[in-house]
Amino acid sequence: MIKLEEIRRPVGPEMKEFNRRFKDAVSSQVPLLNMVTRYVLRRKGKQMRPLFVFLSSKMTGKITDSTYTAASLIELMHTATLVHYDVVDDSNERRGAFSVKAIWKSKVAVLLGDYLLARGLLLAVQKKDYALLEIVSDASREMSEGELMQIQKSRSLNIDIETYYEVIRKKTATLIASCTACGATAAGASKEVVDKVYELGINIGMAFQIKDDLFDYQPHGIIGKPTGNDIKEK
Amino acid sequence: MIKLEEIRRPVGPEMKEFNRRFKDAVSSQVPLLNMVTRYVLRRKGKQMRPLFVFLSSKMTGKITDSTYTAASLIELMHTATLVHYDVVDDSNERRGAFSVKAIWKSKVAVLLGDYLLARGLLLAVQKKDYALLEIVSDASREMSEGELMQIQKSRSLNIDIETYYEVIRKKTATLIASCTACGATAAGASKEVVDKVYELGINIGMAFQIKDDLFDYQPHGIIGKPTGNDIKEK
Repeated sequence: MIKLEEIRRPVGPEMKEFNRRFKDAVSSQVPLLNMVTRYVLRRKGKQMRPLFVFLSSKMTGKITDSTYTAASLIELMHTATLVHYDVVDDSNERRGAFSVKAIWKSKVAVLLGDYLLARGLLLAVQKKDYALLEIVSDASREMSEGELMQIQKSRSLNIDIETYYEVIRKKTATLIASCTACGATAAGASKEVVDKVYELGINIGMAFQIKDDLFDYQPHGIIGKPTGNDIKEK
Repeated sequence: MIKLEEIRRPVGPEMKEFNRRFKDAVSSQVPLLNMVTRYVLRRKGKQMRPLFVFLSSKMTGKITDSTYTAASLIELMHTATLVHYDVVDDSNERRGAFSVKAIWKSKVAVLLGDYLLARGLLLAVQKKDYALLEIVSDASREMSEGELMQIQKSRSLNIDIETYYEVIRKKTATLIASCTACGATAAGASKEVVDKVYELGINIGMAFQIKDDLFDYQPHGIIGKPTGNDIKEK
């Protein structure tokens, strides 16, 4: 199986530069805010979403200043979503460490999520990257719709396969698709190419979510992935 | 004292039209989402923020299509903030009725807030009203900073008057100022005029918050306003 290391290699230097710029993008004059964002950023995950943005830009043209904006915007939005979902799931753990909610309570978690979202928006607005903003806002709308749809459907306990596909397309795949679409847009690709890599992102995202859901049926835990949680919550 | 009715009169028909457009702006294909947003909208407040937008547009030029976009964007963001703050404050009451959090739990409240925010952004992006978006995103960043600053300062219990002014400027006044600034921007006013009505909005917002905080020291309750809550929470 191909290693993440190899996938990352073509955009390695750009990902390093991205991490430097990203830290600047979230700094604030409010000390509590800096403390919390530093805590979140130290526990950064595999950064799959920025990686998709950079790879898509490089694949469809070249990496530009807009590629960095897109990657920051999406990573800020993704981090905001994770911080909010810890409140939603009442979760005290995130990426193998205490969640923001666990340490600073729901209050700070909700506000921090809102703050990170606003910073992402401002970044795109100030750079006048409006096309990226439209792709990402639309993904954001679909993600909250998907999560709410899941809540509603899980109550009635009669999810068929089509509904399952629609839920995971909305709640997971649209964000991955917005990464690939933003990457191509930032590279100056044609609408046709942007649409194609959007579809590619949808397929990657759905495959990822299906695999993630299958983990829930594993008899033994996988390192870093608690099993059975989603089943317990139905 | 001048009545709200009289203040509202110059933009009465426009406010009616606004309410019609606003309902369309939040409709969704997810039934649970429609149920919750309908519930929130039925309990709409005095709609002071859209009113400021329309009055400012009319005062500095004329009401345009962008004025409606600005009013919807700000009302969506304000509603999202209220829904989130019910989670933040663990509040079961809002505008004299049960809050979304009380009926549908934190999970739905956090997601609904995110959804409303995303709808507002999309609206502005699709109408290409980018100047409005910048004003509002900046207000959003300042608001979450202000709330977090308040949390931090209230822990240390040594708030001086300057810090109090800074907190209320950020958490309340910037949103009112974004209403007046967006109104003038939508009317096509010059940067000088926009800056002036922004300052006007800051002053109105701070006066409003000081009055609201004074309610907390009233011996008897005021209808629709629970007293002493903020003092209890320090």
